[in-house]
Amino acid sequence: MMIEKQIAALLPQLREKKPLVHNITNEVVTNFTANGLLALGASPVMAYAPEEVADMAKIAGALVLNMGTLTTDMIASMIMAGRSANEHGVPVVFDPVGAGATPFRTEMARRIVEELELAVIRGNAAEIANVVGDAWQIKGVDAGEAGGDIVELARRAAKKLGTVVAITGKTDIVTDGETTYAIHNGDEMLTRITGTGCLLTSVVGAYTAIEKDYVLAATAGVASYGVAAEIARQSVNAPGAYQIALLDALYSVEEDQIAAIARIEQK
Amino acid sequence: MMIEKQIAALLPQLREKKPLVHNITNEVVTNFTANGLLALGASPVMAYAPEEVADMAKIAGALVLNMGTLTTDMIASMIMAGRSANEHGVPVVFDPVGAGATPFRTEMARRIVEELELAVIRGNAAEIANVVGDAWQIKGVDAGEAGGDIVELARRAAKKLGTVVAITGKTDIVTDGETTYAIHNGDEMLTRITGTGCLLTSVVGAYTAIEKDYVLAATAGVASYGVAAEIARQSVNAPGAYQIALLDALYSVEEDQIAAIARIEQK
Amino acid sequence: MMIEKQIAALLPQLREKKPLVHNITNEVVTNFTANGLLALGASPVMAYAPEEVADMAKIAGALVLNMGTLTTDMIASMIMAGRSANEHGVPVVFDPVGAGATPFRTEMARRIVEELELAVIRGNAAEIANVVGDAWQIKGVDAGEAGGDIVELARRAAKKLGTVVAITGKTDIVTDGETTYAIHNGDEMLTRITGTGCLLTSVVGAYTAIEKDYVLAATAGVASYGVAAEIARQSVNAPGAYQIALLDALYSVEEDQIAAIARIEQK
Repeated sequence: MMIEKQIAALLPQLREKKPLVHNITNEVVTNFTANGLLALGASPVMAYAPEEVADMAKIAGALVLNMGTLTTDMIASMIMAGRSANEHGVPVVFDPVGAGATPFRTEMARRIVEELELAVIRGNAAEIANVVGDAWQIKGVDAGEAGGDIVELARRAAKKLGTVVAITGKTDIVTDGETTYAIHNGDEMLTRITGTGCLLTSVVGAYTAIEKDYVLAATAGVASYGVAAEIARQSVNAPGAYQIALLDALYSVEEDQIAAIARIEQK
Repeated sequence: MMIEKQIAALLPQLREKKPLVHNITNEVVTNFTANGLLALGASPVMAYAPEEVADMAKIAGALVLNMGTLTTDMIASMIMAGRSANEHGVPVVFDPVGAGATPFRTEMARRIVEELELAVIRGNAAEIANVVGDAWQIKGVDAGEAGGDIVELARRAAKKLGTVVAITGKTDIVTDGETTYAIHNGDEMLTRITGTGCLLTSVVGAYTAIEKDYVLAATAGVASYGVAAEIARQSVNAPGAYQIALLDALYSVEEDQIAAIARIEQK
Repeated sequence: MMIEKQIAALLPQLREKKPLVHNITNEVVTNFTANGLLALGASPVMAYAPEEVADMAKIAGALVLNMGTLTTDMIASMIMAGRSANEHGVPVVFDPVGAGATPFRTEMARRIVEELELAVIRGNAAEIANVVGDAWQIKGVDAGEAGGDIVELARRAAKKLGTVVAITGKTDIVTDGETTYAIHNGDEMLTRITGTGCLLTSVVGAYTAIEKDYVLAATAGVASYGVAAEIARQSVNAPGAYQIALLDALYSVEEDQIAAIARIEQK
């Protein structure tokens, strides 16, 4: 089966199963993330307290950790939730927001990849490079200038971290170090709204809850999100309206559209 | 006077008085809650620091406590704010988000109902059941399958807790254990946006600031919100646009529309 | 050159330079603030942890401190970030949300103006009055009844605090105690959305990153925001849609429109 059809077929499964996605995420994107997951058909929950994160993570279909507005308390909760997820076979997806922007973020990101077994790590090139110790420029929480071969970076990171890596940018790369896909979807307007990367990470999380081949799950998440981003852009041309249109496209996008619009290239 | 006309007449009073509603709520819904209260005509304030919650609660028209993203610090602030509100005759409305989903949440919800005098508690059936110690399934922070008679549950909870109970779902129930109303308004799309239940709780809070018969206040909050939800649905069919349309409907809804569209049945 | 043309000319510079604006702000408005800054053309980052705020502030073009949902931890982070910004010549813009509403807020606001060197302080009349110790009524976080001469208050505050003061309301005043502008733009609908004042403060922050004459920077921020607010209102008449339209207007507004629509009066 063509990869596009294969990953498109996962969306009806996701909507049927409505997986519970436990997010420990940053306060900037929490509402947008919850609404995006709901629109797609998943069931989001946000829970941070050390007294409950292990209990919540073990009943979830996936755990998503996002360090956008990191504090040491939150890191402790992430580790506790992550260990519980690891013990109970719940996939953990990690978004190292702004790794490289400050020493604290880089250090915390590395602590998470060392202490937890991840299903997928999703970031821009600068973030992934900083997590694995490559030199790469970053400005605030946005990727700096691309300074190298993204496919090579993704493969190296996947092997080093022992997890599926998704690097998103103009072209998105998903790899486990062996099987590699380049996804050519999405829209430039995604860069004019905050949290579109964070939401994508949570969407990938939702797919890992229903597909245990995490290369496939991450590819499905990235491609279906990119297709929704293109559909959303058809009707609008400014970021406020686009934010709403993106949620609506995540809600309305169908398997057939993903199969037809997704452009996935095996590398 | 018909109950629909009676509760509709409260909206112009609310808009005239613009009650200050002090919210200690979860970080997922804080923006949506503030905007919903502003749209309706109330004056929201969010304040959490232990150094100021007692001061803020005592000058408010109502205090709304929501444990969606609970921490122990926040529980301490809620108790301090709640005691200050109780001392100064400010109604306290409580939303036990996700009670039953983890032992921590259940325990914290029970602590709040024990330590504070509540005007209204608003939740779905599973949350209310878990607060009063009934067995009821819950998935994440969403209600599980209805496993019993909601009216009976609401009455039992009201008597046990000594407060007005509002259980929302396909049909909404408001009762103090004696007088009971079933409200048949709302729209299924409310379940596709995060925080619609939380905002409803704050809307009920706004009504308790202007109407001391809390059965009436809660019924007004639930019914006017349900009417706005129906008006919002007339123009849109996807959750992003619906979120905006709901805010706009809360802003534009008029007394006459509530009187005409509200469907309230005394049980 | 006319002041309107002069400040309009700053917008293309802002969009060219895309300054990194480090916000330590309240959880109600964090998403709206980030999206507003992105829409305008700046690059927002939110970072709060004491372990990283000094590192983030020193690489930023401006630091914006907003005490909307203040805690003592956050005040400590604000002071650390502010000192780092002061040391590295990064302008600091402060929004004393709700100063006067509780003793805690007033005290914390005064601590910030004492311990940090500010480029601009932006608030409503009641907030600014409370920061400088004038008696002024405040309700929650909204300005109370205007009880005095706003221009006089702004000048007095600017001299006392040694910073540029921007007081916003029906008419907006920007002054350093010597040069004073009154800006007659904006729209009443701004008062029906939460966080429009907070976003304005961050927009002023973005302008201070590219214009070292802070009277000019603050005037540019206030006037361009007011013009966008008027453009947004042309198409909509309710607060949900207005919130989106405002983001879109910040994205689409051009130098020519600001020069033509801004109404700035030197006092």
